[in-house]
Amino acid sequence: MQLKPIGVVHTRATPEEVRSSLRGVDGVIEVFEEYAEGLVGLEGFSHVIVIAYLHLSRQAPLLVKPRRLARFGIPLEDLPAIGVFATDSPDRPNPLALSIVELKSVRGRFLEVSGLDLFDGTPVLDIKPYTPSRSLRITKLPAWYTELVQKLRERGIDIGDV
Amino acid sequence: MQLKPIGVVHTRATPEEVRSSLRGVDGVIEVFEEYAEGLVGLEGFSHVIVIAYLHLSRQAPLLVKPRRLARFGIPLEDLPAIGVFATDSPDRPNPLALSIVELKSVRGRFLEVSGLDLFDGTPVLDIKPYTPSRSLRITKLPAWYTELVQKLRERGIDIGDV
Repeated sequence: MQLKPIGVVHTRATPEEVRSSLRGVDGVIEVFEEYAEGLVGLEGFSHVIVIAYLHLSRQAPLLVKPRRLARFGIPLEDLPAIGVFATDSPDRPNPLALSIVELKSVRGRFLEVSGLDLFDGTPVLDIKPYTPSRSLRITKLPAWYTELVQKLRERGIDIGDV
Repeated sequence: MQLKPIGVVHTRATPEEVRSSLRGVDGVIEVFEEYAEGLVGLEGFSHVIVIAYLHLSRQAPLLVKPRRLARFGIPLEDLPAIGVFATDSPDRPNPLALSIVELKSVRGRFLEVSGLDLFDGTPVLDIKPYTPSRSLRITKLPAWYTELVQKLRERGIDIGDV
């Protein structure tokens, strides 16, 4: 299965700033000229979904610790080992990222966005509108997840997601 | 960029039933044995995100009409031509699908789901948890979009999404 980049992420934020940001960073999604016509009608959505190819990710075991949380003061030994498909770890069998970003403006083939959790230079594979059916009422979360959120709250951190 | 299937969609619904369903169909996501360990910790999420490879999609122009709506009584000539990146059309530069499904049960490496809009036999590339940060409050939708939703409502159809 062969995929090709349709665009690329631009951000002034460093990888370290992206990793440690609670709500993502500002940036621009550049769509390459040959795909620019595909953006017609995107302006007006408050949010868009970016599927990107995590070109810097590594092959990793299928069980991971949500290491990002170690930055926020939870000792590594207190973090559970979780399957990659239950986490947002960038090191997964197919290095695909799903980033839901706020669409601030569309200038030609450049999308100005915020809430980005992707590094500068990340290839973009697809863009989709964030339509009402994507916004679901969550009725259940696993115990390991809510316990981590609670541990973070005790440290005064509202990370949004684990 | 080379990707590999980590699983496959099983559903008894025919392609025609998938296409014409308003809320998706029931099915099972099979994760291949070598990736099964990646599912640890997924049980307990009410919804999961499935990224799939639309193996039956075709190369198509970058401007498309949301043809699915023609099934619901909107004449094709009344449908606007929209860029693929502002629609869920399966015919897009990279044939990637994003399906948010309800996770009804996890039996080993088989996920029983509902709300599926994928055909039987579709290769699965990735699975991610639907965490609270994926559920956003939409503040804006384009006029073309809300007008189509309105036209459908006038026909008594609540399609959820356009």
